[in-house]
Amino acid sequence: MNGAESLVRTLIKNGVDICFANPGTSEMHFVAALDRVEGMRCVLGLFEGVVTGAADGYFRMKGAPACTLLHLGPGLANGLANLHNAKKASSGIVNIVGQHALHHIECNAPLTSDIEGLARPMSAWVRTSPDSRSVARDGAAAIAAAQSSPPQIATLILPADAAWSDADDVADVTETLQRPDYSSQAIESTAKILRGSGETLLLLAGSALTERGLALAAGIAGKTGCKVMGETFNARMARGRGRFFVDRIPYPVEQALSVLKPFRNIILVEANDPVAFFAYPDKPSFLKPEGCDVHRMTANGENSIAALEALASAVGARLRDAKPQQPMETGWPEGPLNHTSIAQAIAMAIPENAIVIDEAITTGRKFFPSTAFAAPHDWLQNMGGSIGFSTPVAIGAAVACPERKVICMVGDGSAMYTLQSLWTQAREGLNVLTIVFSNRMYQILRGEFDGVGAGEPGKKAMDMLSLDRPALDWVTLGRGMGVQGRAVTTADEFNKALAEAMAEQGPRLIDVQM
Amino acid sequence: MNGAESLVRTLIKNGVDICFANPGTSEMHFVAALDRVEGMRCVLGLFEGVVTGAADGYFRMKGAPACTLLHLGPGLANGLANLHNAKKASSGIVNIVGQHALHHIECNAPLTSDIEGLARPMSAWVRTSPDSRSVARDGAAAIAAAQSSPPQIATLILPADAAWSDADDVADVTETLQRPDYSSQAIESTAKILRGSGETLLLLAGSALTERGLALAAGIAGKTGCKVMGETFNARMARGRGRFFVDRIPYPVEQALSVLKPFRNIILVEANDPVAFFAYPDKPSFLKPEGCDVHRMTANGENSIAALEALASAVGARLRDAKPQQPMETGWPEGPLNHTSIAQAIAMAIPENAIVIDEAITTGRKFFPSTAFAAPHDWLQNMGGSIGFSTPVAIGAAVACPERKVICMVGDGSAMYTLQSLWTQAREGLNVLTIVFSNRMYQILRGEFDGVGAGEPGKKAMDMLSLDRPALDWVTLGRGMGVQGRAVTTADEFNKALAEAMAEQGPRLIDVQM
Repeated sequence: MNGAESLVRTLIKNGVDICFANPGTSEMHFVAALDRVEGMRCVLGLFEGVVTGAADGYFRMKGAPACTLLHLGPGLANGLANLHNAKKASSGIVNIVGQHALHHIECNAPLTSDIEGLARPMSAWVRTSPDSRSVARDGAAAIAAAQSSPPQIATLILPADAAWSDADDVADVTETLQRPDYSSQAIESTAKILRGSGETLLLLAGSALTERGLALAAGIAGKTGCKVMGETFNARMARGRGRFFVDRIPYPVEQALSVLKPFRNIILVEANDPVAFFAYPDKPSFLKPEGCDVHRMTANGENSIAALEALASAVGARLRDAKPQQPMETGWPEGPLNHTSIAQAIAMAIPENAIVIDEAITTGRKFFPSTAFAAPHDWLQNMGGSIGFSTPVAIGAAVACPERKVICMVGDGSAMYTLQSLWTQAREGLNVLTIVFSNRMYQILRGEFDGVGAGEPGKKAMDMLSLDRPALDWVTLGRGMGVQGRAVTTADEFNKALAEAMAEQGPRLIDVQM
Repeated sequence: MNGAESLVRTLIKNGVDICFANPGTSEMHFVAALDRVEGMRCVLGLFEGVVTGAADGYFRMKGAPACTLLHLGPGLANGLANLHNAKKASSGIVNIVGQHALHHIECNAPLTSDIEGLARPMSAWVRTSPDSRSVARDGAAAIAAAQSSPPQIATLILPADAAWSDADDVADVTETLQRPDYSSQAIESTAKILRGSGETLLLLAGSALTERGLALAAGIAGKTGCKVMGETFNARMARGRGRFFVDRIPYPVEQALSVLKPFRNIILVEANDPVAFFAYPDKPSFLKPEGCDVHRMTANGENSIAALEALASAVGARLRDAKPQQPMETGWPEGPLNHTSIAQAIAMAIPENAIVIDEAITTGRKFFPSTAFAAPHDWLQNMGGSIGFSTPVAIGAAVACPERKVICMVGDGSAMYTLQSLWTQAREGLNVLTIVFSNRMYQILRGEFDGVGAGEPGKKAMDMLSLDRPALDWVTLGRGMGVQGRAVTTADEFNKALAEAMAEQGPRLIDVQM
């Protein structure tokens, strides 16, 4: 057994049995080990942003880390943007990054770079394995780091000589996963606030947004009159009929300020102090109103479900205290495609237990309320703001949950960053429907241009915001990578394309031309 | 005038008048300034690897830096792989990377990351501008850094508040570009070696590979009997009829060892000590034979042309001492497409003064000798080994030299990393012919797998090397981004497609199906 094989066996033994990969020469011993060791599924991506985004999606749906296989510094670099998004979503990932044989580094061969330096900004744990007999132990430590509470990005750098030289054994993850509980004192003081006067917001994130967390929060709200919301973006939220609907803090700063204005207290359940996504001249960065106190009930990684149970008990709330939500009118839309009709069609089409990946940016701002009473589903958003997030995350979600339909909603600008995802979806026959919203524009920047005080874009500025010259043909792009699709220009066509796609297995694409 | 405008004006005033851009919110003031200031051409890329690769290609052909415009840490991260290639090619680039307003960083908003940490591994110069009135001065310092000898990657991080707040003025680059000359002692000792006995190799890189440098080297070789070669990969080499043909050190280690075996002395003219691209078990990393001495004549950034002139004078060589090269048989190929017929067709098709970008990987290994007697052209290669290099570099070369035909030769695996390049080529109407070699395989890894001692790939390993399930349809992918193309399967079809593409202006694609 060589070092690479000891690593593959260690990963599998400790439950890391999916590898999203884009390997090169220095990773060939790891690839070779896949033939000798049973139990590792390896999924090829043709660009590393696909690989790391897929690992993020896998973690969000499985709650367990996958590994990636990346080629030296530049391969890692190509995956960093989606590692950034994964880090901000608290996804656990074990990156395996190849390195030259250690004696070869002094040669400064073309692919030599500072891999640890590249890894650090997006990784909580970084280690270069010093030799083949350390690889298994280092692999186990990387898994332990990825499985921390909160979960982390762990990057293990594997020199080629450590991969090809002799190793003894596999290793076990010895650190027991200790999920920190919660602070009883925080529950007591939260209960006191909820029993007091003054408008209070329970701001939920992370595990508080599971079906159970939402139900508990709904009971607490029903009993105490507090309001419950989610952050602007959420890693995963349980939604749909029968589940408690929580709205999110709006993205535009003015709207966020207005929504938060009534509150005297904000209770953070894994959430962060509400902040603006970007800074704007003469607008605040912190969004809480003057005189409002912010209190932390649980931190990221703490047991928010147990904490919410304790809080419910402290305030005497029961699940049946939840006030029923007012269902919205539904029905398939008619007429032209616009943000409202698109939202309505998607709400109608979401099948039971779907996974919805939301990178619809401006087009998607109306999707959230409309889909609140769709069939029960999970809703995944981009926590790091680096676009090109959704199509790879859809791969990981589909690999984690092959029996569920994945609906990836993405703006055309965002979809271009990682369009190679479609090929992996075709190769693996993944049950992913990609809906591209083609407004032929970085539409969000059109708004932000004004928002930052830059006025009205002139011809040269508009050129940097528009994607209309030439128009991207998404059905053709999909076909070039093996994914069949359909372009739609009316609500009726969209309805039919959605119904057709939901009835089929395997990857499909709808190009919504706006 | 705000900070962003002072930066745009400073860039233009100091000759940096091309901006390859993929901006976001934090860069909107820079974009807005483009409307108010004449003289900056802005070229949009739909992925940052396109942007940074284009800046590399621009520098190689223009000898002057372009700037890039990138969105925060993740935008920079997406551009790092091609910055790595640019750094290894000694290309000068001024990266402008947006940052949150400085007061906003403590909010840890979704897009917050360690931008300086990300920049450092691929940048020689990194600075975050502290306020709006420092931006012009920092911009001038970045330009000076990019124009150093050797040229460098300079990354200027521009906080949004420094962009939008008031600024006074533009700045001048005050550092005078001092190209270090060369060491007379090194010339003397080189001349002594060349006059002595023992086989000697003059190993050229960088500016020594211009037409003038090659002619001088040819004269020296003719006079002294030394051999002249280039490194395995070269940033830019003048080639074709009437120019001195130098072969390169082969990529495979055994072949390189065999080629270098006769030499007792290796003289480095900007070149590096020959090393293996990767390490392999039981193969050396340093390639010089035992007993061979390596001597540095000029370092990267020194004036190798003046040094070669001095050397020619010292050994009494004149240009007419150059031995004429034996021209190769040429003619359009017939029959099936294989590495030889493809190379022959390309040699016939290269038009006068073309720019050839070579990322043909395994398919391209036969191209170099065959094209030695094509019409005069420049040949650009990947110096950093991170694939996805050529299609963006073609953009930059075409922007730098609009009157020249750019021929981008790329393997299908490599082309997938930055296929968004085709859209920019279509948008800008660039005179680029992309030739994709579709062997549906990371063919080089097939060889490396055996080379690193991993034996014969089994089914699971082969799955990580092959791109045949599904097949990528490059003509369709090109059409989806506005580039017309043609697939060819015989030499005759390839000949015709090449002739047709050479006769046309604007971007075209040929999918060579092997």
